[in-house]
Amino acid sequence: MTNIIYDLIIIGGGPGGITAGIYAARQKLNILLITKDFGGQIARKSVDIENYTGFEKISGPELTQKFEKQLKTQKIEIVTGEVGKIEKRDGNFSVSTNSGKYEAKSVIIASGSDPRPLEVPGEKEFTGKGVSYCPLCDGPIFKDKIVAVIGGGNAGFEAAFFLANYVKKIYILEYGPQVKADAENQELVKNTEKAIVIVNATVEKIEGDGFVKSLTYRDLVSKELKKIEVDGIFVEIGNQPATSFAKNLVEFNEKDEIKVEFETYQTKTPGLFAVGDCNVGKYKQIITAAGEGAKAALAAYEYIKKNQN
Amino acid sequence: MTNIIYDLIIIGGGPGGITAGIYAARQKLNILLITKDFGGQIARKSVDIENYTGFEKISGPELTQKFEKQLKTQKIEIVTGEVGKIEKRDGNFSVSTNSGKYEAKSVIIASGSDPRPLEVPGEKEFTGKGVSYCPLCDGPIFKDKIVAVIGGGNAGFEAAFFLANYVKKIYILEYGPQVKADAENQELVKNTEKAIVIVNATVEKIEGDGFVKSLTYRDLVSKELKKIEVDGIFVEIGNQPATSFAKNLVEFNEKDEIKVEFETYQTKTPGLFAVGDCNVGKYKQIITAAGEGAKAALAAYEYIKKNQN
Repeated sequence: MTNIIYDLIIIGGGPGGITAGIYAARQKLNILLITKDFGGQIARKSVDIENYTGFEKISGPELTQKFEKQLKTQKIEIVTGEVGKIEKRDGNFSVSTNSGKYEAKSVIIASGSDPRPLEVPGEKEFTGKGVSYCPLCDGPIFKDKIVAVIGGGNAGFEAAFFLANYVKKIYILEYGPQVKADAENQELVKNTEKAIVIVNATVEKIEGDGFVKSLTYRDLVSKELKKIEVDGIFVEIGNQPATSFAKNLVEFNEKDEIKVEFETYQTKTPGLFAVGDCNVGKYKQIITAAGEGAKAALAAYEYIKKNQN
Repeated sequence: MTNIIYDLIIIGGGPGGITAGIYAARQKLNILLITKDFGGQIARKSVDIENYTGFEKISGPELTQKFEKQLKTQKIEIVTGEVGKIEKRDGNFSVSTNSGKYEAKSVIIASGSDPRPLEVPGEKEFTGKGVSYCPLCDGPIFKDKIVAVIGGGNAGFEAAFFLANYVKKIYILEYGPQVKADAENQELVKNTEKAIVIVNATVEKIEGDGFVKSLTYRDLVSKELKKIEVDGIFVEIGNQPATSFAKNLVEFNEKDEIKVEFETYQTKTPGLFAVGDCNVGKYKQIITAAGEGAKAALAAYEYIKKNQN
C-alpha cells in the first residue's frame, strides 16, 4: 500500500501506547500509531480514577481525552484500524490491518486486553441488544429496567454500583461459592438496596426476542437450571490479552500474555516490544502501563540507532 | 522512640515514593512516609515537563504540588527527615532518621539521587554562597551577574537556557572535547547570545571572599590553569543515587544503584523494595518512577499478607 518504512509502529491507543508515542516522538522518530480507539480500558471505566498520580479524581473519559490531546501535540501519524498480523522480513516488520499494510523498523505492542466473553448460546446474537461489556457506555439505556451483572469480583461490583444509578434491580451472578470483590465495594453495592447476589451460579443461555428477555443459569449446588427475567446483561468476568496477531513472533504464558524481557520490554524478537495489559507483567494499572510505554520507546530508540546501517 | 510497627515505610517524596504511598494507602496499609522534601528532582527542574502523560506542559513545582496534594488526601503519616540507616531484625525493619527511629514490616526506598558534587577546593565552603545545584531555586539571585555552568550535557544546557533569563553572561564548562547536549538544547542556548562554551576544561578550584568570585580550570589540551571571574557556579555533572543508608541490606551496581528483581522491585532482602532513580533501572523518568512505585506498593502488600502470621 505504502512505501514508507517507519522507525516505529505502535499498536494501541491506551496509556501504554500513548506514552510510548509521546516518548518516541520526542526522540524524533518517524512514528505510526495504529489503534481502534483511544484510552483502551480507561475509556470504559465506570468509576472515577483516583490512583493515577497527578489527578486526585478524574473520570475515565476525561483522562482519555487528556492523553489523546497530548499525544496529538506530537509529530506522529495515527490510523484507525485493527491489526490482523505482524511479520518480520529482512529486518523490518510488516503490520497488516483492516485499513492497510504498514512497514517499520520496530514495533511496540500496546494492544491491551478485551473483555472475556461468556461463550454461551445467545451471547453473540444479543450483543448490542441487551448484552454489554461496558456499563459506562450502555448503563443509561437501562433506566428503571432489570439487569444482571455476571461476575462477582471488583469489576462486577463496580459495574453494579454504577448501574444502580439507572436500573431498578440488579442480579449479580458469581460462579464461586462467594463473591471476590473488596469489602468496600460490597458495602457500596449493598447500600444501593437494588442488588441481589447469587453465588454458585453459572450462566447457561441468554434468550430474547430482538432484545434480551431472560438469562438461564445453573445452580452449582442443587444442579438445577433457573431462569430469571432481565432486560440487560453486563459481562464482567475478566479480560483476555489482545495478542493473537503477534503469535508468530512472540512467546506467550498460559494466559496468552506476551513474554518480555525486563526492563526493555522487548519480546523474543529483537525490535518487537510489548507493554501494559498485553504482557506478562503482574501489576496492570494505568500508571504502570504508561511507565512501561516510556521504557519501551526509549529501548526501541536504542534498538533503531544500533541497527542503523 | 515509638512502639508502632507500620506495615510499610516509604523513604522519599518524589514520584516513586508518592505513587507508592497512594497505592499502598488504597490497600489500607498503615504507612509512614519519610522525606526531606516533596517532588525530588521534579521540584528542581528548570524547564517545563512535557513528557508526563496527562499534562501537555507543566512546571516542575506545579506538578510537585499536584502530587503532594494527592498524596495528602490519603490516610498516610508523613515525617520530615533524612534516613541514616536501615536494619532488619526479627523480620521487621528499623529505619533511623535525624528525627527518630521507626519500625515497619516492609520498606520501599524511593530516595532518588542527589546532584554529584565537583569535589574541588572551595566547593563546600561556597555552597549557598554562589555555588548552587539548583538553577530554578537560585537563578533569580544572579540578575545581571556572570555565572558558570559546569557540565555540557542536557542538564547543563537546560540550566544555561533558564539562567539566561537573569544573568548577563554564562560560561559553560565541559570536561570532554565536545558538549553532549542535544542539538535542540544547544540551539536554544546559542540563541540567547549570552553563553560561552569552553570544552576540555576541568574545574580545579573555587575562590571568593564570603561569596564566589572566581573559578580556576585546567585546559586539558594546553594543560594550563585558567582563572575566570564569576559570581555564581551551577554544578550540572549528573547525579548519584542516595542509597548509602541501605548498604547492609542491598547489593549495588558500579554506580551505587540498588539491584532489584523485576517486576516486584524487591531487593535481595525480602520486604525491602527500591524504585525510581535509586535502583539499577536504565530509564529514569518521572512516569517510570511512578509506575515502579505502584508495582512495589502492590508487591509490598502481597509480601505483608503472606508473612502475616
